[in-house]
Amino acid sequence: MSDPASSDANHTTSIADDALVLFMPSGRRGNFPVGTPVLDAARSLGVYIESVCGGRGICGRCQVTVAEGQFAKHGITSSADHLAAFTDTEARYRSKRSLADDRRLSCSAKVTGDIVIDIPQDVQMQRQVVRKRAEYKRIDRDPAIRLHFVQVEEPDMEQPLGDLDRLLTALKTEWHLEHLQIETWLYPKVQSILRKGKWEVTAAVHTADGISTLIGLWPGFHDKFYGVAFDIGSTTIACHLSDMMSGRTIASSGTSNPQIRFGEDLMSRVSFVMMNPGGEEQLTKSVRDAIRSLIEKVCSEAGIDRHAILDSVFVGNPVMHHLFLGIDPTELGGAPFALAVSGALDFPARDLELDLHPGARTYILPCIAGHVGADAAAATLAEAPHKEEEYTLLVDVGTNAEIVLGNKDRIVAASSPTGPAFEGAEISCGQRAAPGAIERVRIDPETLETRIKVVGVDEWSDDPGFAEQIEAVGVTGVCGSGIIEVLGEMFLAGLIDEDGVVQGAMAEKSDRVIADGRTFSYILWRGAVELKITQTDVRSIQLAKAALYAGVKLLMDKLEISEIRKVKLAGAFGSYIDPKYAILIGLIPDCDLSKVSGVGNAAGTGARMALLNRVHRTEIETLVRRIEKIETALEPKFQEHFVNAMAFPNKVDAFPNLSEKVRLPERKQGSSGSENSSGGRRRRRSRS
Amino acid sequence: MSDPASSDANHTTSIADDALVLFMPSGRRGNFPVGTPVLDAARSLGVYIESVCGGRGICGRCQVTVAEGQFAKHGITSSADHLAAFTDTEARYRSKRSLADDRRLSCSAKVTGDIVIDIPQDVQMQRQVVRKRAEYKRIDRDPAIRLHFVQVEEPDMEQPLGDLDRLLTALKTEWHLEHLQIETWLYPKVQSILRKGKWEVTAAVHTADGISTLIGLWPGFHDKFYGVAFDIGSTTIACHLSDMMSGRTIASSGTSNPQIRFGEDLMSRVSFVMMNPGGEEQLTKSVRDAIRSLIEKVCSEAGIDRHAILDSVFVGNPVMHHLFLGIDPTELGGAPFALAVSGALDFPARDLELDLHPGARTYILPCIAGHVGADAAAATLAEAPHKEEEYTLLVDVGTNAEIVLGNKDRIVAASSPTGPAFEGAEISCGQRAAPGAIERVRIDPETLETRIKVVGVDEWSDDPGFAEQIEAVGVTGVCGSGIIEVLGEMFLAGLIDEDGVVQGAMAEKSDRVIADGRTFSYILWRGAVELKITQTDVRSIQLAKAALYAGVKLLMDKLEISEIRKVKLAGAFGSYIDPKYAILIGLIPDCDLSKVSGVGNAAGTGARMALLNRVHRTEIETLVRRIEKIETALEPKFQEHFVNAMAFPNKVDAFPNLSEKVRLPERKQGSSGSENSSGGRRRRRSRS
Repeated sequence: MSDPASSDANHTTSIADDALVLFMPSGRRGNFPVGTPVLDAARSLGVYIESVCGGRGICGRCQVTVAEGQFAKHGITSSADHLAAFTDTEARYRSKRSLADDRRLSCSAKVTGDIVIDIPQDVQMQRQVVRKRAEYKRIDRDPAIRLHFVQVEEPDMEQPLGDLDRLLTALKTEWHLEHLQIETWLYPKVQSILRKGKWEVTAAVHTADGISTLIGLWPGFHDKFYGVAFDIGSTTIACHLSDMMSGRTIASSGTSNPQIRFGEDLMSRVSFVMMNPGGEEQLTKSVRDAIRSLIEKVCSEAGIDRHAILDSVFVGNPVMHHLFLGIDPTELGGAPFALAVSGALDFPARDLELDLHPGARTYILPCIAGHVGADAAAATLAEAPHKEEEYTLLVDVGTNAEIVLGNKDRIVAASSPTGPAFEGAEISCGQRAAPGAIERVRIDPETLETRIKVVGVDEWSDDPGFAEQIEAVGVTGVCGSGIIEVLGEMFLAGLIDEDGVVQGAMAEKSDRVIADGRTFSYILWRGAVELKITQTDVRSIQLAKAALYAGVKLLMDKLEISEIRKVKLAGAFGSYIDPKYAILIGLIPDCDLSKVSGVGNAAGTGARMALLNRVHRTEIETLVRRIEKIETALEPKFQEHFVNAMAFPNKVDAFPNLSEKVRLPERKQGSSGSENSSGGRRRRRSRS
Repeated sequence: MSDPASSDANHTTSIADDALVLFMPSGRRGNFPVGTPVLDAARSLGVYIESVCGGRGICGRCQVTVAEGQFAKHGITSSADHLAAFTDTEARYRSKRSLADDRRLSCSAKVTGDIVIDIPQDVQMQRQVVRKRAEYKRIDRDPAIRLHFVQVEEPDMEQPLGDLDRLLTALKTEWHLEHLQIETWLYPKVQSILRKGKWEVTAAVHTADGISTLIGLWPGFHDKFYGVAFDIGSTTIACHLSDMMSGRTIASSGTSNPQIRFGEDLMSRVSFVMMNPGGEEQLTKSVRDAIRSLIEKVCSEAGIDRHAILDSVFVGNPVMHHLFLGIDPTELGGAPFALAVSGALDFPARDLELDLHPGARTYILPCIAGHVGADAAAATLAEAPHKEEEYTLLVDVGTNAEIVLGNKDRIVAASSPTGPAFEGAEISCGQRAAPGAIERVRIDPETLETRIKVVGVDEWSDDPGFAEQIEAVGVTGVCGSGIIEVLGEMFLAGLIDEDGVVQGAMAEKSDRVIADGRTFSYILWRGAVELKITQTDVRSIQLAKAALYAGVKLLMDKLEISEIRKVKLAGAFGSYIDPKYAILIGLIPDCDLSKVSGVGNAAGTGARMALLNRVHRTEIETLVRRIEKIETALEPKFQEHFVNAMAFPNKVDAFPNLSEKVRLPERKQGSSGSENSSGGRRRRRSRS
């Protein structure tokens, strides 16, 4: 009984050659020979635990705890004693850097019996918390670039391998990194780095497509590097700087896309290039300049050197994608809307002169189709309709609306030519969502008077504090969400009929309705500037919303479904829109209003996911190949859906969900959906 | 009997499901199902037949002929009828481009019976003929870069893959090229090239280390590209331009290494960098400038655009190698002579700003050790001692002598610190081998009068026409081979004794021997300039030749051999030296004089081999790992060998071969090799 092995047997459920190891929270488990380091067990099960120093007890990144007790479900009695005794390496780390009492270094701790290992959130998963309305978005880290600390043999005349060659030998021996590719710029730097680190260095290795490349080298132990994720919009460029070792976003910033001076919307920029051959170079330079400045801004905010950035991820719509890469976007300006390159790209960031670390990489998510870009791919990655049972509609409204609809079995995507009306362009009083823009509107159906809410002012216009606050910002225009609301309210108040005609007869009820040439307008606001909704404005929105609705309808046809259970509206516009009004004007199909949500900059979130985790890169690359692309221009039904969707809310649907919230005006005779072949077809399908 | 199959049986040895196919001149053979295209059979046997167009009958590069008749040794009766009938593709090629009557296109011709296929030299092997004294050096082509003609699907809205993505699909389908890496600069070019070629393009694909990269793209069918091979010497840079499709060298040129202004020899350039931190940038810039100019020169000579160059190979000694790559060579200036990088390198040529095709590659052969460079590796590749039964000594004499000794079983290499005496430096009347330099010398042992031969003059000095010719060039100095001869002749004439002392007593016999301070000199030539050999000159050569000999001796010790069967002297010096004098002064060990040869710029030949054939790249990479490196500074025996080798010819060897040619002066007492431990050791070994 004094034999340590038998005394050990007192408090273990099994002392055999093998021990059962269960990792939480992943739940992955496997049997391993007694004596296996916990880190090795994790790796062979595909459980990601970081280790920079390779078991030297320097980096402390591989910390774990033991969950003690009975785990009946798994048939394990786990105990901290089922790890071999605390090692000298761990003791050294504890004394130098502090290690909590319950923590072990998984590179050193060896299993001696059945055990449940917890990977602590703070150390291991380094989860990224993204505030998204009420829900948190977690991004697990598994970056495409990893750091590896190694000790390199000193040079020896007996065996005259070069310094770099001995470094490669060490990386092969200690980290099993074989056939490493070397970048030319490193050759002149290797010797001084090795000598400065006294033959101890940290190497950064990038892996993609089965090819591993040595992209960075620091003297001694080094455990810091950063990454940037960009969403290049036609209007705005957004940038997030991440600490790649913790996964935390340490700075974010945005700027206007300076390409605006070459054209407000995408097509005008394409036209600029068409009219000015070689003009893409100016557009490319301007967007890259803006990106370099944004990087400088987030780095200075976070107090880091931009050359510490090793990875960068970019998403954007196809035209932004091409211009960023220096590709002439002319082909995207007309059928067949051929992308120069659609697949995911992974190349050295220096090729775009981004002025990051000399070995830094750039990853660009795949484009889905000629009008459905890497931004839509990123939003899809972030919102993951492919992981849902229920059909989810994801809409990113910009100059074109990018629409993705699907569930775990099947996904379809399309782009609808909404034009820029939702962004406030083409609307007489339209503007971007900036202080002074009307974002919410209520119209009294009796008096036809308005109540408004303005960006930058907390109170509604009939609240007592409004007058005082509005002085600072003024009322300058109507932004996208405001336009949706004003049209919805005008429809409910009878100011427009279901065909979208502004009712001149209402002038009798209110002086806000005025004759405006051969049509009528409604005066939304009288102030320093008079803001009115004209017949042309209504038509613009009708065209835009009908295009979006028809696109969604086509995708529903493709999937042979008659209703959508969940709607996610991406982008700034989507975040502020009231679902009730979106359905009321017929922007999206009728749907349980509680299942319609704004998801903010989903494209930016997707870009950050690809930045922090290479598994997400593979995920979106595989998914995009699976997505069925619908070209609206090729679908004969599109025109029919479009025409039917021009009415308010449209001429087809019954709006069961919306009817619970608002009293819809009665339909005109002859407008009932039952006379419509599309409606008929839809009903047939819902029977099956 | 009218059945074609049975009539066929009349003149074939076997008509079965399989046919035996034998390729000449390689002799490779295999059985293939009837119907297999000859090209496919060749590929599966590793017989390299080029095909750019992939069997479309456009390129005509895969032509073969049938060797008809009985091949008893191989048990084959071969007939042109054992290929299926001439195809439409072949007929079209014949009508458009002409195809000799006996030629078939191996992509189209299918085997129907046993057959012997000849791969014609002119079409297939495109052998490179290099004049090398009396022997020809053949380089088979199998370049690391290949051209592939493909037809690409046009863009289609139904399946919106990018243009580049469809190109990759075509390369995968038609050429089995998977996981192709793409270079960033290509993205903006793909669309216009595809459209210009009407969806037919030729792609250049580079393969190394298992990674294939798309490095070039041309509209339509394209079957031309070029390569350059460089030998960067401390003194001279040599460049060869090759047509990569034929293997022919189409232009060659050379220039002085402009780094000379930073220091004549290697060590003075290393010192320059040591004294001027960052000075390597100037040295790197000057050598790259010279290389760019040489490329311009050979391209203009051959009438091609430098941007048509897709591949480049460089060799050089370690210091040249490092400076070319922009690496500070300081570490090479002192023990342990650590190379920054020793392995073979393969990277984009744009990284060195060579201004070639944007996708062009650079390959650099591996260095063997800190003093034995990529030039020695290239010379070894060219002279191939590793393919010989007999031990072969390969010596490249420069500022350091790089020495390789071995046979098919074992190879050793070292560098000996000869200093620049053999290049004419450190010799009072020394100069490079240029017009006016004495290259050959005879001294009458009775009168001590000289006969000389001068570079640029056909006659010896006692020929009638000499006086007239010499006027144009003058006699300006003595080059390396002349110095060897004059010392050998002085020794034979008794002007120096075996210890190298210039014999003042000889002044009695001739006024050419004069007192020169405390020592004596011999006047070699009296003309516009008086050229004399001083005691210091003799000592310089003694030190140099002893260093070389001692290095060779060490390698022989290592291999435990007592004689060398074949000696190859590389470099300009080696090409002009008379083997008899080389042995007479003890530069190299005694050897059958007919087995000593100059091999010219073997390093340059090796560079061209690596340029034209990737198999040679693998060959030298594997070989260099196998070569045993001897660091002379670490070997205790080196000093002993060195001291013994100071005498003329040396104090150890018996010179059986040399004794047949010249009568050697008797050795002084006490100088016999039998009293010398090294000699004793050698004899012990030769007994075993």
